[in-house]
Amino acid sequence: MGFRRVLRPGLVQLRVLDLEKTLNFYINILGLDFVGRTPDGRVMLKGYDEFDHHSLTLRKADEAGLDYVAFKVCGPRTLERLKEDTAAFGYYIDEIPPNTEQPGFGKRYSFRISTGHIFQIYADAAFAEKGPQIKNPDIWTTQPRGMRAQFMDHCLLYGPNITEAELYCKEVLGMYVPEVCNNPDGSRLASWLTCGNKAHDLAFVEYPKPGKIHHLGFYLPEWTDIGNAADLIAIHNLQLDIGPTRHAITRGYSIYFWEPSGNRVEVYAGGYVAYPDHPQRVWDAAKLGRGLFYYSGEVIPSFLEIVT
Amino acid sequence: MGFRRVLRPGLVQLRVLDLEKTLNFYINILGLDFVGRTPDGRVMLKGYDEFDHHSLTLRKADEAGLDYVAFKVCGPRTLERLKEDTAAFGYYIDEIPPNTEQPGFGKRYSFRISTGHIFQIYADAAFAEKGPQIKNPDIWTTQPRGMRAQFMDHCLLYGPNITEAELYCKEVLGMYVPEVCNNPDGSRLASWLTCGNKAHDLAFVEYPKPGKIHHLGFYLPEWTDIGNAADLIAIHNLQLDIGPTRHAITRGYSIYFWEPSGNRVEVYAGGYVAYPDHPQRVWDAAKLGRGLFYYSGEVIPSFLEIVT
Amino acid sequence: MGFRRVLRPGLVQLRVLDLEKTLNFYINILGLDFVGRTPDGRVMLKGYDEFDHHSLTLRKADEAGLDYVAFKVCGPRTLERLKEDTAAFGYYIDEIPPNTEQPGFGKRYSFRISTGHIFQIYADAAFAEKGPQIKNPDIWTTQPRGMRAQFMDHCLLYGPNITEAELYCKEVLGMYVPEVCNNPDGSRLASWLTCGNKAHDLAFVEYPKPGKIHHLGFYLPEWTDIGNAADLIAIHNLQLDIGPTRHAITRGYSIYFWEPSGNRVEVYAGGYVAYPDHPQRVWDAAKLGRGLFYYSGEVIPSFLEIVT
Amino acid sequence: MGFRRVLRPGLVQLRVLDLEKTLNFYINILGLDFVGRTPDGRVMLKGYDEFDHHSLTLRKADEAGLDYVAFKVCGPRTLERLKEDTAAFGYYIDEIPPNTEQPGFGKRYSFRISTGHIFQIYADAAFAEKGPQIKNPDIWTTQPRGMRAQFMDHCLLYGPNITEAELYCKEVLGMYVPEVCNNPDGSRLASWLTCGNKAHDLAFVEYPKPGKIHHLGFYLPEWTDIGNAADLIAIHNLQLDIGPTRHAITRGYSIYFWEPSGNRVEVYAGGYVAYPDHPQRVWDAAKLGRGLFYYSGEVIPSFLEIVT
Repeated sequence: MGFRRVLRPGLVQLRVLDLEKTLNFYINILGLDFVGRTPDGRVMLKGYDEFDHHSLTLRKADEAGLDYVAFKVCGPRTLERLKEDTAAFGYYIDEIPPNTEQPGFGKRYSFRISTGHIFQIYADAAFAEKGPQIKNPDIWTTQPRGMRAQFMDHCLLYGPNITEAELYCKEVLGMYVPEVCNNPDGSRLASWLTCGNKAHDLAFVEYPKPGKIHHLGFYLPEWTDIGNAADLIAIHNLQLDIGPTRHAITRGYSIYFWEPSGNRVEVYAGGYVAYPDHPQRVWDAAKLGRGLFYYSGEVIPSFLEIVT
Repeated sequence: MGFRRVLRPGLVQLRVLDLEKTLNFYINILGLDFVGRTPDGRVMLKGYDEFDHHSLTLRKADEAGLDYVAFKVCGPRTLERLKEDTAAFGYYIDEIPPNTEQPGFGKRYSFRISTGHIFQIYADAAFAEKGPQIKNPDIWTTQPRGMRAQFMDHCLLYGPNITEAELYCKEVLGMYVPEVCNNPDGSRLASWLTCGNKAHDLAFVEYPKPGKIHHLGFYLPEWTDIGNAADLIAIHNLQLDIGPTRHAITRGYSIYFWEPSGNRVEVYAGGYVAYPDHPQRVWDAAKLGRGLFYYSGEVIPSFLEIVT
Repeated sequence: MGFRRVLRPGLVQLRVLDLEKTLNFYINILGLDFVGRTPDGRVMLKGYDEFDHHSLTLRKADEAGLDYVAFKVCGPRTLERLKEDTAAFGYYIDEIPPNTEQPGFGKRYSFRISTGHIFQIYADAAFAEKGPQIKNPDIWTTQPRGMRAQFMDHCLLYGPNITEAELYCKEVLGMYVPEVCNNPDGSRLASWLTCGNKAHDLAFVEYPKPGKIHHLGFYLPEWTDIGNAADLIAIHNLQLDIGPTRHAITRGYSIYFWEPSGNRVEVYAGGYVAYPDHPQRVWDAAKLGRGLFYYSGEVIPSFLEIVT
Repeated sequence: MGFRRVLRPGLVQLRVLDLEKTLNFYINILGLDFVGRTPDGRVMLKGYDEFDHHSLTLRKADEAGLDYVAFKVCGPRTLERLKEDTAAFGYYIDEIPPNTEQPGFGKRYSFRISTGHIFQIYADAAFAEKGPQIKNPDIWTTQPRGMRAQFMDHCLLYGPNITEAELYCKEVLGMYVPEVCNNPDGSRLASWLTCGNKAHDLAFVEYPKPGKIHHLGFYLPEWTDIGNAADLIAIHNLQLDIGPTRHAITRGYSIYFWEPSGNRVEVYAGGYVAYPDHPQRVWDAAKLGRGLFYYSGEVIPSFLEIVT
């Protein structure tokens, strides 16, 4: 059950095709706040309810997808210990000095895990100029826009050897695994991991190609907000994948759709309060349809096949 | 920022006047599940979404109030270390052997903190017979009843010297303090503490009389459930204190009312996702009305004066 | 814009295959109240929020489907005038004496309209024994069960020559038509009709086979109730057709699914407040997917093909 | 049960003290759309979901209050018949020619009823430039602002001799009266009236001073929107009267608060679907607290005493 070593996924860098059009989606439809541009033209964004400098960076590229996901850990000593443990686990580590490449972020360690994804860890980030109030605070400063995304919540990664990735996240990062889905032969098909009490902060699905992202999830407060998000998907002609629906896995309410560059985005609300002493929920692969899409009970092909 | 030492408040024992009438409230109106009776006639209850044996025990007595609140810690070694640290902090510790007084619970350590409340800590509890499903689980087994309380969530305690109590919870139990309210002289009027990512698990208000409980809070998923709970308060002629309303503090939705024995109960939904690296929110005593009752902005006298 | 001649669809008789299993659905899952059985074994049901004797009768038969839908009109004189106008419109009328075949119902006139459906009209119905309270009323007497259906709301009928049926409903019954969908040649593909301020009480889709019912709709208060209904569909393994979703047509929130006998049921919430002076909303057949299923924008084949 | 003679309250003119500050409230906080200014400086507003030219006019004056409420009737012939019936009822009638004083409105008849309020009736209004879409319509064109008020819904009027006013509305305007509240001596204390299927369009409370308005109500779709409105009341420091709460009368969800000029505004959601054949709900004056404020069960003094 270990320590609270990793706080949360705190930063994701995504590749997008049409930066301005995609940016319009993230700001005006999803409702993120614009933080600024890096000297090399990437765009930094954050949810209105996030304190840290930014949580999402968009980089113009020829194909969509994930550059890396970075996890904030609970202090500089933990960061160094996790670096050592990660090296001992067998991953090669690059050090990224503070305030390079991602303004506002302290030193990061970067490494590739078994699934082919680049993970980073860091302990320090400057507070955003426009974060939540802290002195006799109102619930927000400016009424949230569009889908009213509160914060970047989680990502689902597709790649090979998720068993090792899960082990790394548990043994080194100190996450635990509230739910898993197993193949008939007992091997892992998917696992959902959390750093704290949210039902999930990260998930893996076993997949032959390395380094793929299935979706990036943003948090909305309630089921009603999911309905509002669906209205906006319709009005703005975004391409829906599935939803509004509910996952039996995590119990969260959900819609999946594609942003203009083709990265799948989830707006997600609810989810149970997880604890490391709770028994792990286990899904049979044959029941995964029910686990993912509780209402229809069926996996849609696009969910298993389309990743970026 | 420390370790995750304490998981949550896992058990509360309340004193009630009319056991059967009060029990009817907790089961049929609040929606808890009946677990059983102890040999000496106390009643054990739990929320439908709790795994552990029970989370609330009702004891018939001549006056309402709190016997103790017990915190589940993350393992037996942590339990022993917390025992030592608690003793070192200066509190006298009683040991309660497993399965005595509270069926299903492992060894507990019991001690009185500065505010006059009895705290307990324990690492083990048997799983309830009727907990949430874990194999290809549905979201619930039996449709929740009445107010549909998911789990016992938190308590607000009134007593003297909350500064010491807050210090104990931080330094020994490893909680952190997302929000505080200070008097004009800088002294603490109130503090809200959490073990993990819920906005609060425990709160203190400075008060001259020791060992008082202001309310016991139960978790509902959404604002809509708060409306349903309010309907039930009206239909069953329960005495409303205040609500439906929202706290600016924690941002949770809330109703306060009294159960038939006179203990104040809160049904609570929402609340932000807390992290130990977030800046502490600070309230001036003069603004506490807004912090507690965001919509009216005014403290009602009963809130400050009536405790059990 | 005419008079308010018809109040609402007040009674539907459905054919079901397995009476007891289907009854269990309507009572324990949909949440209707059991009113009684007729001497010939049919079952009478009503929503908890309906005043009249019953609104749904289930008849055991070899194939599922609709026997008839009966409309309550605003008084005995209106009833006689509508009878005359209906005859003048060219429909042959049968008179059903009071309290025969449907206990609690006054005299009914029965006739077949152009689409092959049997319509009935009546002015009187006994109040149900267990209707809503009227003296210092609570919002309900017994907490609603299951999906918490408030009342039978509308039906969508498939059959030939809906242009005539629409004309009859407008010119004789005094309904109006807030929304229509037209084929490229300008002919009617579908129309939505209302007796008052609900967005719809009745709808037609042009279809070669006469007398078919697409679905029977029941009213839920809010989007949240749609989520609860979806949970129950999953837990009780009912076969989902589509949803939770929203119609752009009427703007209502919706789920379609099949009850155990194969009749499609809709739970429906929301919808705009309609007025006869509002301009008619007009849909192109090519946009019907968006009109029906606002979020995906696509008609699913089952929606157009499966009727009973 | 009569005919549908009157469609709805379609236009209200309010007196306000500080026009610009009050306008900011109606547009940016309540969420109405600005339609234009009259040559004499009054401001015309409408809800985003209203088709007619405007529904609220603000007039700068030395004291807040209601100039008049105008009802739209279902056609020019009905208008003339209602004029005659109103005259026959004994009210003196002024004729206001089309497009004078209220741009976009056809001929109006104006008269004072027993309670001292000026009522108007009209049959024609130009459509607003920015009304809801009607060709393959989206659910809205621009995401609703602030409290997201859909339309002007109802008003509660205080004045003497409401028995006569109720009679007039029933016998001449063809409204019906779903709920009433009677004094112990059987005299009317309050009545709620509707033109169609909304639970109320108008209400009266017996009061010695003539021509007073208690509140003007605006419609929100759901209980969740009531929560959002309450957040905005807090953030914008509007003065709350009471709420969020629920009425047992009409069953609507509600918040009462004062706009910057001191007129009380209600945001209202839900409410049952009313029909003229339903039995009238009757409240004893002693139970009015429960009827008005279902959750607390108590009338607050301001509700009975403060009118404009």
